[in-house]
Amino acid sequence: MKKIDGWLTAPQGFIAAGVKAGIKVSGNHDVAVIYSAVPAACGAVFTQNKMCAAPVLVSREVNKEASAQAIVVNSGCANACTGEQGIADAKKMQAYAAELLGIEPQQVFVCSTGVIGQFLPMDKLLTGIADAVDSLDENEGESCALAIQTTDTFVKKAAYEVTIGGKKVTVAGIAKGAGMIHPNMATMLTFITTDAAVAPDVLKRAVKAAADKSFNMVVVDGDTSTNDSMIVLANGLAENEIIISEEHPDYPVFFEALLACATDLAKMIARDGEGATKFLEVNVTGAASWEDAKTAAMAIAKSPLVKTAFFGEDPNWGRIVCAAGYSGAQMTAEKVNLSIGGIRLVENGMNCNIPASELAPIMAEHDISMTVDLAAGDAEATVWTCDFSYEYVKINGEYHT
Amino acid sequence: MKKIDGWLTAPQGFIAAGVKAGIKVSGNHDVAVIYSAVPAACGAVFTQNKMCAAPVLVSREVNKEASAQAIVVNSGCANACTGEQGIADAKKMQAYAAELLGIEPQQVFVCSTGVIGQFLPMDKLLTGIADAVDSLDENEGESCALAIQTTDTFVKKAAYEVTIGGKKVTVAGIAKGAGMIHPNMATMLTFITTDAAVAPDVLKRAVKAAADKSFNMVVVDGDTSTNDSMIVLANGLAENEIIISEEHPDYPVFFEALLACATDLAKMIARDGEGATKFLEVNVTGAASWEDAKTAAMAIAKSPLVKTAFFGEDPNWGRIVCAAGYSGAQMTAEKVNLSIGGIRLVENGMNCNIPASELAPIMAEHDISMTVDLAAGDAEATVWTCDFSYEYVKINGEYHT
Repeated sequence: MKKIDGWLTAPQGFIAAGVKAGIKVSGNHDVAVIYSAVPAACGAVFTQNKMCAAPVLVSREVNKEASAQAIVVNSGCANACTGEQGIADAKKMQAYAAELLGIEPQQVFVCSTGVIGQFLPMDKLLTGIADAVDSLDENEGESCALAIQTTDTFVKKAAYEVTIGGKKVTVAGIAKGAGMIHPNMATMLTFITTDAAVAPDVLKRAVKAAADKSFNMVVVDGDTSTNDSMIVLANGLAENEIIISEEHPDYPVFFEALLACATDLAKMIARDGEGATKFLEVNVTGAASWEDAKTAAMAIAKSPLVKTAFFGEDPNWGRIVCAAGYSGAQMTAEKVNLSIGGIRLVENGMNCNIPASELAPIMAEHDISMTVDLAAGDAEATVWTCDFSYEYVKINGEYHT
Repeated sequence: MKKIDGWLTAPQGFIAAGVKAGIKVSGNHDVAVIYSAVPAACGAVFTQNKMCAAPVLVSREVNKEASAQAIVVNSGCANACTGEQGIADAKKMQAYAAELLGIEPQQVFVCSTGVIGQFLPMDKLLTGIADAVDSLDENEGESCALAIQTTDTFVKKAAYEVTIGGKKVTVAGIAKGAGMIHPNMATMLTFITTDAAVAPDVLKRAVKAAADKSFNMVVVDGDTSTNDSMIVLANGLAENEIIISEEHPDYPVFFEALLACATDLAKMIARDGEGATKFLEVNVTGAASWEDAKTAAMAIAKSPLVKTAFFGEDPNWGRIVCAAGYSGAQMTAEKVNLSIGGIRLVENGMNCNIPASELAPIMAEHDISMTVDLAAGDAEATVWTCDFSYEYVKINGEYHT
C-alpha cells in the first residue's frame, strides 16, 4: 500500500468541481459536485441523530440502491430542521444535478452542511450546481474539497494506491470537520472515491466497518451533528477481478486501503477540532472488551476537565483515571496504569510522583499520546481528540445563528 | 414549610466548626467537623465512579450502620488514587476524630475533596481535626461551610423549617461544587442535618430519592468525581413522632423539606459552576418517560456547543434540538417545540424566525430557562446547568496538579 498525493479525482473515471455560489457569507467555495463516468457501487453511513437533516433522509434512499454516479453538496446551510420544504429542496437539488448530468435522481447523493434551521437559498444553489457541473474536471479536486468546508482550518484529504490482482487501484477521500464532532456515524462529511471493483453489498459492509474503526473513534465536542454522512463510490474502472465477498482474497487489501484513507481523514478532523491546540491519542488497553475500551477512551476524550488540562499543558492524570472510572467500563481500580508520552505516571492506581520537569517537554508537544491500562482484560481501542481551548469557546460563542 | 437563614447548626443538637490547617495552599479553611449531641439516623449516597476515593470506601461502611454522630471533612486533598495508604489515612482521620469526640470510629463519616493522587498531609490534618473539635460550637456553622470549599466562589447553604406533629423540625444543608459536576450521585460534597426523628431505613431511602431529584439533576462539565458524597444526619431532637415508614402521615412533610434543601443546594452548585456566567434551567416535556426526559435534558445541558452558545448570548436553537436528537430519547422530530425564556423559537421542528432583537434581552439575562417538547409522551424533567466560558478553560487549564 502506497500513500499518494491526490484528490477525489485520483481514481480513474472520477471528476469533480467546487464553485462559489454565494451561500457562504464569506464568499468562499460552497457548492461541489463529484461524478463518476460510470455507475459506481455505493456504500454510505449517516448520522444517528433523530433530528437528522433533509439531505440525510434523501441520501439514505439513494444508499438503498446498488450503485450511484454522483454526489452534490453544499456548505453554508445545513438544510436541517426545515420540515417538508427542506425535503422538497433536497430532492430538487438532487433532481437538478441529475438532469444536468443526464442520470437518474436516484443515482445522486445529496449533502448539506452549515447553519441549522434555515432554508436553502435555492436560486443561488441551483446556479451553483449548474456552474459546478460545467466545471467538472480531473483537475478540480481541490476546489471540490474547499467547497465542503465550514469552520475547517485546512483541507482534509488522503489517498492510497494498492495493487489488486495485478491492477493498480486507487482510493481517495476528502472530509470536513470541525465542530459537532462525535461518533455514531458519522461526525462530518466525508467522500471517498475508488476505481476498485467491489460488489455493492460488500462495499456497504466495508464502509460501515471502516467508519466504526476511524470516524467513529473521533470526538471533538461530543455533539453528533444532524448532517453527518460518509459516502463511498467504487466505479470498478481499475478492472480488478470484482471483490464479491469478504472472503475474496483481494478483500483485505482493498479494506486496508479504505480504512487507511478513512483513518487519515478521521485523525485530521480531530487535529482540526475547533480551537484545537493539541492532537490527543487516547489508547485504552487491558479492557474486558473492545466496547469497554472504546467507552473508557471516549469518556477520557470527551471530558472537558481532561481537555482543558491538556490545553494548559498540565499532566493532570487524576482527571484521566477519574474519567475512565465514571465511564462505566470494567476496571480494577487498584491495578490501573497510565502513561503519557511513554512515561508511566500511575502504577497500580497510584501516583508515580514523576517530577513536573520531566513531563513538561511532553506536555509542550502538539501531538500527545496517552495509554490507560484498565487491568480488566485484553481488549484495546484508540480514540483521537483535541484539547479544549479559549478559541473553542470563542468560535462557538461567536458563531451566531 | 418556611425557608430560614441558618447553617448546619440550626437544627437542635448540632454543632460544627471549620479551621485552617494549612492543607490548602491558599491558607483558607480546610478541615471541618460536624457533630450531633446524640446518635443520629444516617443516610448517604456516594459517587458511582469506579475510581472512588479512600474516604468514600470508608464512609460507605459507616452508612451500613443505623446511626452516626459526626462527619470529619478536609478540602485541599482528595485522598483519591492513594491505594492502601489512602485507606489507612482515611481510617486514621476517622479514628482520631472519634477518639477526640469520645465516640466509636464507626460513628464518624469521612470526606475529602481537592487534588487527586496526593497523600493526605497527616500531621497538618490531625492537628486541624483537634482544632476543629475544640472549636465545635453552635456559632461555627459558617467556618464549617468554608472549610469544605475548593474552587467555589460562594458558600452554598439552605435551611427549611417545617412543623411535624406539632413539633418544629429544621432541615439545614451545605454543599460544595464547582467542577467535576455530573450526576450519578453525587457530584460534590453535601451535608444535611436535621432534628427530625426518622427511622434509619426510611432516611436512607429518602436521601436516595432526594438526591435523584436534586443533585443528580445538575451538570457542570459531565465529569463524575471520585469523592462525591451526600450525607444526612437526623438526630430526632425535635421530638416529633418517629417517621417509621414512607406511609407515615408525616413523611411527605419531612421529605418535602429535605428535597427543598437538596434542590436549593443543587441549583447553587450549577449557579457556581466553574467559570459560569449563566444559570440555565433545561426543561424537557412531552417525553415518553422520565428517564427519556432526563436523558434529553442532560444531553442539552452537557453539550459544549449549547453551553458556549449561551455564553455568547446566542439563541442557537439548532444546537439544542440537535442535542435532544442525539440523546437517544424518543422524539417526534417533525413535532418538536422549543421555547427560550417563554418565547417559542421552534414549532413542529421548524424555525419560527423570531427576530434576534426580540431574543437579545432574554439571552442577556443571567438566569435563562428553556423548554423542549419532544412530542413523544407526557413525562418531563428539569436539569440545571451553567454555560461554558473562557473562565472555565482558564480555571481548568491553570489549576495544576
